[in-house]
Amino acid sequence: MMKAILASTSTLHGQGYLEYLIPHLNELYGNDKEILFIPYARPGGISHDEYTQNAKEAFKKTNLSVRGIHEFKNAAEAIEKAEGIFTGGGNTFLLVSELYRNGIIDLLKQAIKNGTPYMGTSAGTNIGGLTMGTTNDMPIVLPKSFKTLGLVPFNINPHYLDPDVNSTHKGETRETRIKEFHHFNSQPVVGLREGSWLELDKNEVFLRGKLSARIFKCSEDPYEVETGTKLTNLN
Amino acid sequence: MMKAILASTSTLHGQGYLEYLIPHLNELYGNDKEILFIPYARPGGISHDEYTQNAKEAFKKTNLSVRGIHEFKNAAEAIEKAEGIFTGGGNTFLLVSELYRNGIIDLLKQAIKNGTPYMGTSAGTNIGGLTMGTTNDMPIVLPKSFKTLGLVPFNINPHYLDPDVNSTHKGETRETRIKEFHHFNSQPVVGLREGSWLELDKNEVFLRGKLSARIFKCSEDPYEVETGTKLTNLN
Repeated sequence: MMKAILASTSTLHGQGYLEYLIPHLNELYGNDKEILFIPYARPGGISHDEYTQNAKEAFKKTNLSVRGIHEFKNAAEAIEKAEGIFTGGGNTFLLVSELYRNGIIDLLKQAIKNGTPYMGTSAGTNIGGLTMGTTNDMPIVLPKSFKTLGLVPFNINPHYLDPDVNSTHKGETRETRIKEFHHFNSQPVVGLREGSWLELDKNEVFLRGKLSARIFKCSEDPYEVETGTKLTNLN
Repeated sequence: MMKAILASTSTLHGQGYLEYLIPHLNELYGNDKEILFIPYARPGGISHDEYTQNAKEAFKKTNLSVRGIHEFKNAAEAIEKAEGIFTGGGNTFLLVSELYRNGIIDLLKQAIKNGTPYMGTSAGTNIGGLTMGTTNDMPIVLPKSFKTLGLVPFNINPHYLDPDVNSTHKGETRETRIKEFHHFNSQPVVGLREGSWLELDKNEVFLRGKLSARIFKCSEDPYEVETGTKLTNLN
C-alpha cells in the first residue's frame, strides 16, 4: 500500500525550494511527523548538513519536522523506524552509490512498499523507477549497480525537456538519449516535465501537475499522456 | 609520440558528417591508409554496419579507406595492426562497456601512445580523458570501470554548452554538473565547445578550432583559454 510523490523537480522557476509541493506534504505524510531526509545526492556538492538545513527550512511551512539520515548512528534503523521519508535531488550516481554503500537500498524499497510515505524530487524520483538508466546526471562516481527501487514498473526521466527546434547544438536531444536507452533496455520511460509528479496511492500510479508527460516505449513512437492519467499498468 | 585529434563533435550545424574535420585527416593519418573505425558507441542505437557505412561515406572525400573493428575476427589484432584509428560518437557508457568487454582498452591506449594516429569525436573524444566521468550521456549500460585512455592529463566534456541565462529550466547546468564532479575527482575538466578540438602532436596538447575552451579546476573559478593554447601541462 504505497503512498508517494515522485516529482520531476524540487523547485519551479521563480519559486522557493519545494514551494509548489508544500501544500501536498501533510496529505502525504500526515501531521506532526518527523520526516527522514536522505541528502546523499548533494546537489552542487553541498554537505549533508547544509542540504538537510535547506529541507528543514522548507518544511517549516508545514507541521512536519526533518532529520537527516546522516544524523543517525544506524542508517538502516533510521529507515525502518521512519514515519516518512524524503530523498532530495542532486547527483543520481552519488545517491545510488551511497544507498548501496550503506546497504540500505532494499530496506528503503521495503519500507516504502510497506506503506512508509515517501517523496522524491529529481534524483530522489529517478530512483523510484526500475533503474537509474535514464538519469541526466554525470557519472561522477561508479555505483555498484544501476538497479533502483522499482516503485513503478517503468523508468523515469526527471526534468524532461522537449527538443529545442531552433537549437544549432549537435549534442543528443533527450529523446535521442532515451532511444539509445531502449536499444538495451525494454521498460517504458516516463519523461516527467518540471511541475509534474507521479502520485502513488495504494497500488495505483497517477500523473499529477498541470502538464502532460511524454511516454517512450521500446520500438514505438513516443506519445503524450494528460495529467490525471493512470500509469499503474504502463509496461 | 602521440598524434591525435580529439573533437568535441562529429558534425557542425548545417554541415555534413565530419565535414569540418575532413581537411585535417590526411595530415593526421597520412595518405592511402586503411583506418580502423570503432563504431561501438552506436549513436541513436544504429548498428555497427550502418555506422561504419556512414564513416566510409564521409572518408570518400579523402584517399583513406575505412574498416569497422567488428569486421575483424580478432579485435585486439585489428588494433595492433591498425594504420590509424577513429572512434565515433554516440553513447559513452556503451562505448566504454564494449572496450572493456572486448578486452581492448589497454591495447587501444598503447597503440595510440606508440604513435598510431587517432581521431575521436564526442564519445570517442571523451575516452581520451582520464575517465568518462564528464560525459553528457545516459547510463544505458553499466561499464566495468569509468577509467578511460588518459591520452591527456585531464577529463574532457565534449559538446560543452554555456549556461542559458534566459532558461527557466531547473535541471543542473553543465557547469553545476562539473562542479559536482569536482567534489569527488581532482583532475581538471576541459569544456570543449562544438567546432573545437584538441590536437595531440608528439607529446604536446593544443586547443584548435575557432572558439575558446572553458577550463574547470577543482576548487578554482572556471576560466577561458584561447584557441592555440598549449594544454600539455594542465593538471
